[in-house]
Amino acid sequence: MNNNNLINVAIAGASGYIGVELCRLLHQHPFIKIVSLSANRSSGKKMQDIWTQFHGIDLPIIESFDNWQNSSSFAKADAVFLALPHGLSQSFIAKTYNDKLVIFDLGADFRLHSSQNYKKWYGTNHVCQELLSKAVYGLSEIYYDKIKKSNLIACPGCYPTSVLLPIIPLLKDDLIETDEIIIDSKSGVSGAGRTITENNLFAEVNENIRAYGIPHRHTSEIEQEISIFSNKSIKVRFTPHLIPMQRGIYSSIYLKIKNNNSIQSLHKSLVDFYHTSSFVKILDTNSYPETRYVRNTNNIHISACSDGSKKNVVLFSAEDNLIKGASGQALQNFNIRFNFPITTGLQNLAILP
Amino acid sequence: MNNNNLINVAIAGASGYIGVELCRLLHQHPFIKIVSLSANRSSGKKMQDIWTQFHGIDLPIIESFDNWQNSSSFAKADAVFLALPHGLSQSFIAKTYNDKLVIFDLGADFRLHSSQNYKKWYGTNHVCQELLSKAVYGLSEIYYDKIKKSNLIACPGCYPTSVLLPIIPLLKDDLIETDEIIIDSKSGVSGAGRTITENNLFAEVNENIRAYGIPHRHTSEIEQEISIFSNKSIKVRFTPHLIPMQRGIYSSIYLKIKNNNSIQSLHKSLVDFYHTSSFVKILDTNSYPETRYVRNTNNIHISACSDGSKKNVVLFSAEDNLIKGASGQALQNFNIRFNFPITTGLQNLAILP
Amino acid sequence: MNNNNLINVAIAGASGYIGVELCRLLHQHPFIKIVSLSANRSSGKKMQDIWTQFHGIDLPIIESFDNWQNSSSFAKADAVFLALPHGLSQSFIAKTYNDKLVIFDLGADFRLHSSQNYKKWYGTNHVCQELLSKAVYGLSEIYYDKIKKSNLIACPGCYPTSVLLPIIPLLKDDLIETDEIIIDSKSGVSGAGRTITENNLFAEVNENIRAYGIPHRHTSEIEQEISIFSNKSIKVRFTPHLIPMQRGIYSSIYLKIKNNNSIQSLHKSLVDFYHTSSFVKILDTNSYPETRYVRNTNNIHISACSDGSKKNVVLFSAEDNLIKGASGQALQNFNIRFNFPITTGLQNLAILP
Amino acid sequence: MNNNNLINVAIAGASGYIGVELCRLLHQHPFIKIVSLSANRSSGKKMQDIWTQFHGIDLPIIESFDNWQNSSSFAKADAVFLALPHGLSQSFIAKTYNDKLVIFDLGADFRLHSSQNYKKWYGTNHVCQELLSKAVYGLSEIYYDKIKKSNLIACPGCYPTSVLLPIIPLLKDDLIETDEIIIDSKSGVSGAGRTITENNLFAEVNENIRAYGIPHRHTSEIEQEISIFSNKSIKVRFTPHLIPMQRGIYSSIYLKIKNNNSIQSLHKSLVDFYHTSSFVKILDTNSYPETRYVRNTNNIHISACSDGSKKNVVLFSAEDNLIKGASGQALQNFNIRFNFPITTGLQNLAILP
Repeated sequence: MNNNNLINVAIAGASGYIGVELCRLLHQHPFIKIVSLSANRSSGKKMQDIWTQFHGIDLPIIESFDNWQNSSSFAKADAVFLALPHGLSQSFIAKTYNDKLVIFDLGADFRLHSSQNYKKWYGTNHVCQELLSKAVYGLSEIYYDKIKKSNLIACPGCYPTSVLLPIIPLLKDDLIETDEIIIDSKSGVSGAGRTITENNLFAEVNENIRAYGIPHRHTSEIEQEISIFSNKSIKVRFTPHLIPMQRGIYSSIYLKIKNNNSIQSLHKSLVDFYHTSSFVKILDTNSYPETRYVRNTNNIHISACSDGSKKNVVLFSAEDNLIKGASGQALQNFNIRFNFPITTGLQNLAILP
Repeated sequence: MNNNNLINVAIAGASGYIGVELCRLLHQHPFIKIVSLSANRSSGKKMQDIWTQFHGIDLPIIESFDNWQNSSSFAKADAVFLALPHGLSQSFIAKTYNDKLVIFDLGADFRLHSSQNYKKWYGTNHVCQELLSKAVYGLSEIYYDKIKKSNLIACPGCYPTSVLLPIIPLLKDDLIETDEIIIDSKSGVSGAGRTITENNLFAEVNENIRAYGIPHRHTSEIEQEISIFSNKSIKVRFTPHLIPMQRGIYSSIYLKIKNNNSIQSLHKSLVDFYHTSSFVKILDTNSYPETRYVRNTNNIHISACSDGSKKNVVLFSAEDNLIKGASGQALQNFNIRFNFPITTGLQNLAILP
Repeated sequence: MNNNNLINVAIAGASGYIGVELCRLLHQHPFIKIVSLSANRSSGKKMQDIWTQFHGIDLPIIESFDNWQNSSSFAKADAVFLALPHGLSQSFIAKTYNDKLVIFDLGADFRLHSSQNYKKWYGTNHVCQELLSKAVYGLSEIYYDKIKKSNLIACPGCYPTSVLLPIIPLLKDDLIETDEIIIDSKSGVSGAGRTITENNLFAEVNENIRAYGIPHRHTSEIEQEISIFSNKSIKVRFTPHLIPMQRGIYSSIYLKIKNNNSIQSLHKSLVDFYHTSSFVKILDTNSYPETRYVRNTNNIHISACSDGSKKNVVLFSAEDNLIKGASGQALQNFNIRFNFPITTGLQNLAILP
Repeated sequence: MNNNNLINVAIAGASGYIGVELCRLLHQHPFIKIVSLSANRSSGKKMQDIWTQFHGIDLPIIESFDNWQNSSSFAKADAVFLALPHGLSQSFIAKTYNDKLVIFDLGADFRLHSSQNYKKWYGTNHVCQELLSKAVYGLSEIYYDKIKKSNLIACPGCYPTSVLLPIIPLLKDDLIETDEIIIDSKSGVSGAGRTITENNLFAEVNENIRAYGIPHRHTSEIEQEISIFSNKSIKVRFTPHLIPMQRGIYSSIYLKIKNNNSIQSLHKSLVDFYHTSSFVKILDTNSYPETRYVRNTNNIHISACSDGSKKNVVLFSAEDNLIKGASGQALQNFNIRFNFPITTGLQNLAILP
């Protein structure tokens, strides 16, 4: 903490899509001072040279991520946000984890509790297995109490956030069958990050939709958490698609209602679970969320819809993949961890049209 | 047929999105002469006054659809294409059906074989039930022989085309379970037609995705045809979504493989069924179709993907909703019915980027 | 002013594109309470029923604009924002203008000082000519002192804001020729408002650009203000274009440098004029603004570029048409008029990507 | 020419955006056989592996461009289309130019008649100056007679085509002042080619507009041709902008009418000049072209608009940058050179919506 009682924070991967959102949100947070930035692709530059919206905003020069742990600016940080490709944060955290630094890892390295599981899905051995048990899965509304006490918060992936928030309350209340969960998700292309490949060029994304990446690595997080809340090992079918939008994830989750419950039981379960939540909004049954209504916000909109049969229900969720699915949820976890009101810096309404 | 051995055709609903595609495709067809156009919203106008791409193209003045059956230009037609909102073609066909006119109805009125089913899904009594048995469901690759002999061809909806072409060969070969078919479809907004509502405005469609319309009326066609090829009454779960594209439908069809069959069995079934087809392309297993590769064509691309389990498979299909899903398939049916080579006027490649 | 020392404000045209931005910005302003909303198309509804992003936000029910001046909720207002089609605010203001109400008119009715000019461009007689002299043209950075004292602030059009802010300092410093100013502007389609016509449908706007509306009515504002700062009657050539974006205006202003001045003189003039401005950013010479860097902000980015000749210069400006071009500038004027720090409620950074 | 009386053609740069359009158009041309393809980035691949729309289409394997001149497949070619970055075609042509091969160069190397001018704009010495005088500037409607006889046809840039076709008839008829021509052009991003940079990513192009590249190299072509038709050296002011579309160029050309001529004189000049043209359509005065009406076609739509003054006129032109601005015009030149009807393979109508 610095002289003005602000929390000093550092950001790794600052010039990527998630990093730039972290810079924006953290800069606008009234109790945060950004003291250090790093990113290999942009090291030596100012944020405003890469992203002109920061014109006139006072931010640290971007340092190289290699050896950043020895940087004097990083040394000032009370908290660090890591927005890095998977694999990079584990070795960094191995070197920097201590009880005076709170780490918010937005990558995949500490989301899975099992190192075997990590190896299965990511193809390499985890180099910092001893800290896996220290990490809490940072799904804010679900692990609030653990987040409050942890120094290593592994923020969930964008897809898992959109799937788990609708489904966990129903698992807790034992309202749905778990043997045949099908999740069909659609994402804007910012989810792919600032990767420069033909696949992400405007002329090849616009007027196009495609599925990709089956089985997707985010399946592992979804299955881990659903298994926890079902008390048994669960497999799901998860298919991501890319659609011609910049932002937004829409998940359509096909479920079977258990026993004699009804869509109303499911709706009530969700409303009860989230009635005090500032960010999770349960819409009327048989209505449809839209990503535009949550874009640029930390909100997620959820509804349950029936096709007329008694057993079938489809849940829809809409979130902003870069905010509730990444930077916003990380900041929400920061607010939880540092005892700030949970909506601090996250109160923006969606901007339409 | 006129002096030049061209088939005289008439088009109703000529100025709507499907109608304008019919005008383009039929105008470019070497054996067709367009002799009559009608459309209530645009009656009295020339096509080129509404759609400037027809600048300099000689087309009939648009007449009012009311009383069109008595028009002298319509009287010349050997074939008529009806691109009308549901409900309008049944009374028109009641007045005009005869053995010298071949009717291609692109609307919903004659797709369902059962008038009870029609009433259930469309909410009104069918006024021309006596002709339902004359109508053939115009899914070109499936009902080729019947289309060849019919004077009333009810062209399928855009969604059902994208679902039934991938699934019918698998039903015929008894390769998939039919009790839990889930279809998640994503459509560009031209599928909604030229309806002027807030929902279709650019500023409200762009950067947005939403599900809509559960249960969607196209479910009835899908269930009718799947039931026929399964020899039992089948229910499916079908969810359409609107995404920010002009054209294209992408269907993700979640299936369970039956008995000891494998994804290879399914792939082989599809390849065998469509190996002579000019328009249906079966991609490698575990690859992904993209709508851009079929846009502006009468093609549909299909693949079967596995998530690693033995039982689960997802089929993906990509089509152009206004061509293979509407005008193009109607023209394909025309070619079948009038004994032209099936690709006549339908050979265009996709235009990328 | 109410019990909490908040300013009570009312908004007319609340459910249109500019109105909804006013609701968002005013709701998030720390010293404002929204006490009354009106809009004919949506009267009787809640904002959240039309625009779901307001889910859970406490806003007044929308009243009918007809007879709104007699509404008890409107009676509480200290200030009113009118986001109405041209022609509607003049009769409303005729009935409600008084020294206890501050009116921010976002429409065209009081922007022109001359009623003849109004009739020439808008085609009808002005019904409230006696108040024209009371109105101040609310171009915030230019008429700051007058705005501070006025009760009738006619906020500029979106195009004129993007043109006048770059050009007025150069006129004041007598740096440019005024006999041949050419302005080529490009706007996102939200500038057309929530008008439901074929022209604004997604399928007809996407992948398209067109010029429109020459001579455009905003020419009158541009010429009025340029004439004032040139001390002679000036005509300009102004051409607006619609491009497939939701938001943003980009103006390319072709000028001739006067006497022996240089592009550096122009750059210095702009930097000097705006060096204390919170919202106007002068970029380096020969760099290019982009609308994405100002989207969702009240900022305008301006640069001056040379093609290598000594006399020619093109100014570029980028603004968000609904914020700096409409609702944001109106709120900026509110802050000026009510003595709040000028950036209150307007500090958001652009949200990228 | 091969056994079937088809012309054998080869394409360099086949996998780029212009190359893929050449493959599509030439494949669909009834009198062409594609015998050889080259492209360094994709060498060894099939077109259908890169661009799935060619699934099932029989095309040669892509060879490396290095040493392509010695390839046996290239040796069969009667004509070659070069879609290469500037600088690459000059050395290739130096090695391959002969009287049995007709070269259509879609790059910049032979568009400028003066090697000094080439060096000024492209920064390097031209390595094949001796052939500059053999090259004809392939603006089809203007240099028809020369194209018919040339073996080295330097096809114009996309921007110059959109500017010169509207303006040359007016210069020929001496109707416009030439000392102050201002051209403001807007292009879809496919004009940048398949270059993978952050600037071309969907998430950074969508919802954005920016000017770029002043002075743009295409200025040199525009000035060369305007000077020729004015009989004096002319400078123009030309500003290109990138807008969020895949295809299309829209040019707004600000002119002063000369002497006592009127907008009607200009309109008549254009109509007279192009009345036999299959591709150039002159719209009514004071109407507006739209790129959607020419997309996917070889057409260009042109109109002349007045702002009410007697002297001022703005010409608008809309073309598809990859067709009339590149591949289509090259094919039009092929038709001219090989005596095919000029619309062969180029008759497609625009595809809307």
